[in-house]
Amino acid sequence: MSKELEMNEIVSICKMRGFIYPGSEIYGGLANSWDYGPLGVELKNNIKKAWWKKFVQESHHNVGLDSAILMNPEVWVASGHVGGFSDPLMDCKECKSRHRADKLIEDYAHKKDEDLIVDGWDNEKMSNFIQENRIKCPNCGALDYTDIRQFNLMFKTFQGVTEDSSSEIYLRPETAQGIFVNFNNVQRTSRKKVPFGIAQIGKSFRNEITPGNFIFRTREFEQMELEFFCAPGEDLKWFHYWKDFCKNWLLDLGIEENSIRLRDHSPDELSHYSNATTDIEFKFPFGWGELWGIADRTDFDLKQHAAQSGKDIKYMDPVTNEKYVPYCIEPSLGADRVLLAFLCNAFKVEQIDEKDSRNVLKLHPALAPFKAAVLPLTKKLKDKAEEIYSLLSKHMMIDYDEAGSIGKRYRRQDEIGTPLCITIDFDTLEDDSVTIRHRDNMEQIRISVTQLREYISSSINY
Amino acid sequence: MSKELEMNEIVSICKMRGFIYPGSEIYGGLANSWDYGPLGVELKNNIKKAWWKKFVQESHHNVGLDSAILMNPEVWVASGHVGGFSDPLMDCKECKSRHRADKLIEDYAHKKDEDLIVDGWDNEKMSNFIQENRIKCPNCGALDYTDIRQFNLMFKTFQGVTEDSSSEIYLRPETAQGIFVNFNNVQRTSRKKVPFGIAQIGKSFRNEITPGNFIFRTREFEQMELEFFCAPGEDLKWFHYWKDFCKNWLLDLGIEENSIRLRDHSPDELSHYSNATTDIEFKFPFGWGELWGIADRTDFDLKQHAAQSGKDIKYMDPVTNEKYVPYCIEPSLGADRVLLAFLCNAFKVEQIDEKDSRNVLKLHPALAPFKAAVLPLTKKLKDKAEEIYSLLSKHMMIDYDEAGSIGKRYRRQDEIGTPLCITIDFDTLEDDSVTIRHRDNMEQIRISVTQLREYISSSINY
Repeated sequence: MSKELEMNEIVSICKMRGFIYPGSEIYGGLANSWDYGPLGVELKNNIKKAWWKKFVQESHHNVGLDSAILMNPEVWVASGHVGGFSDPLMDCKECKSRHRADKLIEDYAHKKDEDLIVDGWDNEKMSNFIQENRIKCPNCGALDYTDIRQFNLMFKTFQGVTEDSSSEIYLRPETAQGIFVNFNNVQRTSRKKVPFGIAQIGKSFRNEITPGNFIFRTREFEQMELEFFCAPGEDLKWFHYWKDFCKNWLLDLGIEENSIRLRDHSPDELSHYSNATTDIEFKFPFGWGELWGIADRTDFDLKQHAAQSGKDIKYMDPVTNEKYVPYCIEPSLGADRVLLAFLCNAFKVEQIDEKDSRNVLKLHPALAPFKAAVLPLTKKLKDKAEEIYSLLSKHMMIDYDEAGSIGKRYRRQDEIGTPLCITIDFDTLEDDSVTIRHRDNMEQIRISVTQLREYISSSINY
Repeated sequence: MSKELEMNEIVSICKMRGFIYPGSEIYGGLANSWDYGPLGVELKNNIKKAWWKKFVQESHHNVGLDSAILMNPEVWVASGHVGGFSDPLMDCKECKSRHRADKLIEDYAHKKDEDLIVDGWDNEKMSNFIQENRIKCPNCGALDYTDIRQFNLMFKTFQGVTEDSSSEIYLRPETAQGIFVNFNNVQRTSRKKVPFGIAQIGKSFRNEITPGNFIFRTREFEQMELEFFCAPGEDLKWFHYWKDFCKNWLLDLGIEENSIRLRDHSPDELSHYSNATTDIEFKFPFGWGELWGIADRTDFDLKQHAAQSGKDIKYMDPVTNEKYVPYCIEPSLGADRVLLAFLCNAFKVEQIDEKDSRNVLKLHPALAPFKAAVLPLTKKLKDKAEEIYSLLSKHMMIDYDEAGSIGKRYRRQDEIGTPLCITIDFDTLEDDSVTIRHRDNMEQIRISVTQLREYISSSINY
């Protein structure tokens, strides 16, 4: 089975089962935009909940935040996004097609089975590499490009009443800056002491030149970011703490250990302000891709905002009375991207016997869209089945399906990742008990309706 | 206490306690934008969860969706937003200030204690009313305006690599259209039969001329919308069903009955395609304001998209084999606005005795940011207190506070709406039991640590 085919299969099942549809599909779509269907929105919400649970709810250190997408444009001057958040573009003079120089180089290296990271190269270095290695236009085969120009990736819009009086603002390209500008507000009102973190989930927007690979890279995407503030000198300790914490979050939710790898940024690649950066990469069907960036950003961001705004952004240590700018560790994860990783990781075609195979989505129960499905054996059992559905759906997402043979219904639930199927048969009317069938091993047990809720709750515990 | 002061008090407490901060504050803000702090994000998430629980999880009828903010611009041609989603603006020729004609008229009527709804008036009718009633410029007192012009409220942005090749797109002004364009996809993949609904929570953007009243009207806001599809002729029945359902959702979560009223749209005000529309209004400190719009939109939206896209958007009844365009009931609620209503509704200043009063936020426990607070009587009890915090925070949001007198800490928890305080004292080390103090009646009981989780869970049941 080719890699391409595997990815296509996932895209196709996602659409067919109601996980993810092409965005604006009836109008021919919009670039690489996607809409989450009834199952997709549950999966995504469950991922966000699992992240919030471990990074905020259970954390002694961290609190949450939800800052606005539209921010004062000065924010993006301070953060460096107005000046430096751009992609290197060049046109083929022959066929007029447009390319990202860094991607051409990386693709060239990839074909030679080399991993080359172009981040941090300047225009001249990229131009020289392309000429020296004779990397031709993928569209027409020519080797005649314009100079490389930097193209800013922030979406612009206009706020205000008329064109002339209106102010140009940006859609945020990351949620992180909403945290930095609120550092004083959050620290004062939550009365947290350093070390502490501020966590946020929200949409960001980047006018990517080449979005693609399904929901791996989209222009509109959702981020889950933590900015963790600590004393200078303690930063590398906390950097390693959060790196392990993030890796364990993935493993605890079922990501297979050999599907991820940690890649430390080399000194060449490291941002000038960063003491250390590691990417957790996942082996997608199209190759290794960045999943989670964990960066030691030192005091760069808070200092930038203090300088730009003229405000005093510092922390006063209540024990030593020392005033300082905290250092910051940033684990930054894309919700859409990690959703794709969970899907790729969980989707299996299992051979049951010589003739038969099944599609099964072995999602962690905490992530599964439905925790259980209520399946009346025949439509005559509808009343009892609906009673059980009502009882359980007060506590968790439950599917209800009465169409088709019970075997077909089991297979459908396997494919959408439902950990448990609850079958209501005619004995149920007599003994008030049901058959529970497990997704992973297909084993069945019989339990009483009164035990049902507790049984499911303990099976899906996270 | 003046109405103004009450609203100011709420804004001030929101900032001080970490519910809501002014957006981009260190840069002087951005129009009327707001950021949700550690308590605000929990409150907002709880509101969204409570809505999702009743409108999706427990519903036999409805499924969820999460469509993209950026959509193909054809969507907004079909929906009528490109042509007709605008505010009537005029300038004062004397002082050059700009005004919304409809707001000038409504404010004028409001001052005379009349409720006048200008929705549906054309430019000429508004112009005439302003002249006939001599409504003067609120800025300079002149009565010399330009003609009224319509100003489109959609935020524009540009997607693509360069200005010339890029396409102009919009930030969605409502989440509803993402549901309509996915009608076929959702119906087919969820295999739902009419009547059924599609629910969605997400950000929308409107370039409002006059945002204001704290988070009541902001340019960036979050919506919770349901589009409920039924057979033509069944629409008024379902319209009333959902109107009652929405009202009960508010009452069940503690909104006081005399703080809301239902206002039916008059035939003049009704959109041309609507069979019936009712606004649930809430009595904010600044007056009655629209909270929830419930509209019978007939088959208008699906027909518009079918015509614009050339696609067949219909439902085939599996029993009668009849093919038709379903009618649609839309209950549309702003998450920020209803959050403000919950805050206004819950915030009380209670006189305890002649000398003493307390601020208390009587939020429904399901909405309270923290379900309980763990309060060690002295710092010597830290270990035991942290053990209890860790035990409980696996299941719910728990606060931890060891600073200040126990009385002060109770008052702080009252003000942020925490239903239960758990006090750890020296007896706890002996008998493994704690004191629980209730927010609403300030009563205290003693229970064992082993019963704690179950006790809290049953107190916050929703």
